[in-house]
Amino acid sequence: MQFDRNGLEILCRAECLRLLAGARIGRVGLSVGALPTVLPVNFAVVDDAIVLRTAPGSKLDAALANAVVAFEVDSFDPLYHTGWSVLVQGVASEVVDPAERERLRTAPLRPWADHDRDRFVRIYIDLVSGRRLVQPPPSQGAA
Amino acid sequence: MQFDRNGLEILCRAECLRLLAGARIGRVGLSVGALPTVLPVNFAVVDDAIVLRTAPGSKLDAALANAVVAFEVDSFDPLYHTGWSVLVQGVASEVVDPAERERLRTAPLRPWADHDRDRFVRIYIDLVSGRRLVQPPPSQGAA
Repeated sequence: MQFDRNGLEILCRAECLRLLAGARIGRVGLSVGALPTVLPVNFAVVDDAIVLRTAPGSKLDAALANAVVAFEVDSFDPLYHTGWSVLVQGVASEVVDPAERERLRTAPLRPWADHDRDRFVRIYIDLVSGRRLVQPPPSQGAA
Repeated sequence: MQFDRNGLEILCRAECLRLLAGARIGRVGLSVGALPTVLPVNFAVVDDAIVLRTAPGSKLDAALANAVVAFEVDSFDPLYHTGWSVLVQGVASEVVDPAERERLRTAPLRPWADHDRDRFVRIYIDLVSGRRLVQPPPSQGAA
């Protein structure tokens, strides 16, 4: 195992992708009106890309058009101070091919908000990095 | 209650601040090396500002210096598809005043990673917005 300068375990790409595929909620980091913004979304991993559904004309929809975005998933245990996070950085683009769109309709990607979200946006997993925080045993932690 | 175009309840500032104060983990959205980035952090709300501890010289530390950043907290129930999120956008700056630093040392802000994180960064809660997702009763949901 490798650790970064903050003592966090550096996760390999395969482990990052495994954790990503198991998550249900992620957060998109992007600029909206020149302001950094973080928005939670539900998503699915399809063919090594992250796929979201957005409402046509929404702020998210406009901002995601061919922009480089961040996508983060994590899980933390506030009691034991352990957890992990995975960060993807890649280009977002709309899925316009009818056959692809039809296939994505069968992906496990039902919008939580009960409204028309007919646009599929794909974020290619270009860069991926992950960290895991594991607490040392008590004997070491007392140092 | 007010709802946005996606059918999400719009939370007032007071409710956003209440939810923010009760959260343990948030995510900072910012640019690192010109790439959008989202990083999970633990934090405390002190005097209507978000306070983080970072390690001197870290990427986060450098990127937070007087930058406008996003800060997001959320909580979702994957079974019932309900939840909420709060987004803050504001200027981040280091706390350098010795008296203030001493006071922040007593804040509930113990770094989870067991390493030297001696720098306090404050994010002013300039803009705050929040949404809550509530599922309609089954009779309406069947429409």
